[in-house]
Amino acid sequence: MDSVRPRTEELIAEKLDLERLLAAGGGNTFRVADLGCSIGPNTFHNVEHIVQQVRQKYNHASPSSAPEFQVFFNDQVNNDFNALFRSLPPERDYFAAGVPGSFHTRVFPNSSLHLAYSASSAHWLSRVPPEVVDRGSPAWNRGMIHYGSAPKPVEDAYRAQFRKDMGGFLRARSEELVSGGMLVLVFPGLPDGMLHSETQAGSVIYCVNLSILDLVRQGVLDEDQLDNFNFPMYFPHPREMRELVEENQCFSSIELEVVDPEESTWLQGGVGLREWLVVIRSTMAESFARHFGGEEIVDKIFDGASQKIAERAEVIMSTKCKELPLLYVALQRN
Amino acid sequence: MDSVRPRTEELIAEKLDLERLLAAGGGNTFRVADLGCSIGPNTFHNVEHIVQQVRQKYNHASPSSAPEFQVFFNDQVNNDFNALFRSLPPERDYFAAGVPGSFHTRVFPNSSLHLAYSASSAHWLSRVPPEVVDRGSPAWNRGMIHYGSAPKPVEDAYRAQFRKDMGGFLRARSEELVSGGMLVLVFPGLPDGMLHSETQAGSVIYCVNLSILDLVRQGVLDEDQLDNFNFPMYFPHPREMRELVEENQCFSSIELEVVDPEESTWLQGGVGLREWLVVIRSTMAESFARHFGGEEIVDKIFDGASQKIAERAEVIMSTKCKELPLLYVALQRN
Repeated sequence: MDSVRPRTEELIAEKLDLERLLAAGGGNTFRVADLGCSIGPNTFHNVEHIVQQVRQKYNHASPSSAPEFQVFFNDQVNNDFNALFRSLPPERDYFAAGVPGSFHTRVFPNSSLHLAYSASSAHWLSRVPPEVVDRGSPAWNRGMIHYGSAPKPVEDAYRAQFRKDMGGFLRARSEELVSGGMLVLVFPGLPDGMLHSETQAGSVIYCVNLSILDLVRQGVLDEDQLDNFNFPMYFPHPREMRELVEENQCFSSIELEVVDPEESTWLQGGVGLREWLVVIRSTMAESFARHFGGEEIVDKIFDGASQKIAERAEVIMSTKCKELPLLYVALQRN
Repeated sequence: MDSVRPRTEELIAEKLDLERLLAAGGGNTFRVADLGCSIGPNTFHNVEHIVQQVRQKYNHASPSSAPEFQVFFNDQVNNDFNALFRSLPPERDYFAAGVPGSFHTRVFPNSSLHLAYSASSAHWLSRVPPEVVDRGSPAWNRGMIHYGSAPKPVEDAYRAQFRKDMGGFLRARSEELVSGGMLVLVFPGLPDGMLHSETQAGSVIYCVNLSILDLVRQGVLDEDQLDNFNFPMYFPHPREMRELVEENQCFSSIELEVVDPEESTWLQGGVGLREWLVVIRSTMAESFARHFGGEEIVDKIFDGASQKIAERAEVIMSTKCKELPLLYVALQRN
């Protein structure tokens, strides 16, 4: 997420209207939320950066009226908040709080936040779209773990779930943010017109899928187990996000675009396919272990995937999109 | 704590100044803190009761301007917030947040709370007074685990630590509460002029101490281990609390007194000595296990204590104070 910091700095410097925010109430406390914070340390870096930028702006504009900061770390109720709290930076210059609950619904009082931030989280769906694990549905995603290389009805079901979830997310935030408050989302998405299967990340997920199919064929995994598993993530296009923001009617869009890969410093110099596999394993391993029963099977899945990738390296390397594109969405509450 | 509910109801109904609170800012959110919340369910009952009472008052006064409620559950960073969050009542009508950190210091932004509550927590010291485990000090508490039956210098050291801690507590709350905001503390204390050793609770703790001394004599526990252990709790008198409130200068005292035992419904019908031992075990067991090394030794300590109590039952039953007196402290921020 470091790569998009200059954007957030510019946003705070140029678009955050301090007077409007103070007038919108909340006393002399500037309230920040990190939505989908997980257990750190990334959340602390992001939050510290934001607090520092906003503080600088206040110090510049009216040093005497500089606010105190309260930061709310939000994630699902099953997040390890104990670990999060124990690793809070001891020298932090904000008051910390943890907020358990799904960010697809209201988790804060009305008009109580000044800036809400979410990094690498908004692409998570609230659930697997029910149709894709329903044998009777045309969207049944037989043998597959994601929509990337699946038939169109599967992608449609994922998209519908994302629309519902992101619709709920924006509705909740429009109620929680004060007038003039900012919402900043950074998460993987796709340039308009590009398919998930046209990205290297998509190809690597497909190899993981092929490896699981092999394990089913070998009798190591059960076919039903595979059919009941789908990965609840959707990578939207800017166009889709724009539609949802317009439907919501409460926000002005300041930035809403795919980040130029040149800016994504973590990818500079190119990411090898092995690195992709590491990224994808770190994202998927826990769900796999829970669903398929243990660490050992996760090792088998990724050993197989590694082989599949080696076999197809040339094809995958020629994939249209070599990056994991990031969407940067900055909205201001009207 | 159920026994003091009518007091809190009266306090909210008669002393909480809604207009003053709204004018003090914070938008339309009423913010409540439960300080020293532990893991529930008591904290949920207390908080629900408060929210319900305040909501009722708003509904009565100006139904259209009824606020939303945000409740902050505060405890030390090593509290099990995961357990707390997972047992939050699903049908709660407030927004919940957890706040890790010692309530002897600032844990909330300036002027951000409307009501702070603390049940059964304010008698915990931030640490064992250093003198009582210092062999070179006249306050060295040799062979003893608490100040109750110890020489005066020991009690003085405990009192000095309490003054420091409660001073910090009141200072922090005076900064965090809005003008007109309420601070309500309920915790064990002693009527003016009464010694801790004159209570049944004190006698039972003394029996626990005697049992530990036996285990030292038998070589089961080490003398040094005992000398390094002191229980960091102090039970103040109303006079001491009044002095601290006056020194702080930011609060008006609305109520500050020992609750009439007749009101303490949980003690009605009398509590037997065995019940005392259960209460004291539940409070001390974890510290004992940590310090003396394991559950087994805790069993031994309380088996021994049980015998000591049986041997001295007649003397203990004739103790001046049969209750665990509660202090009820209600302050309003000027």
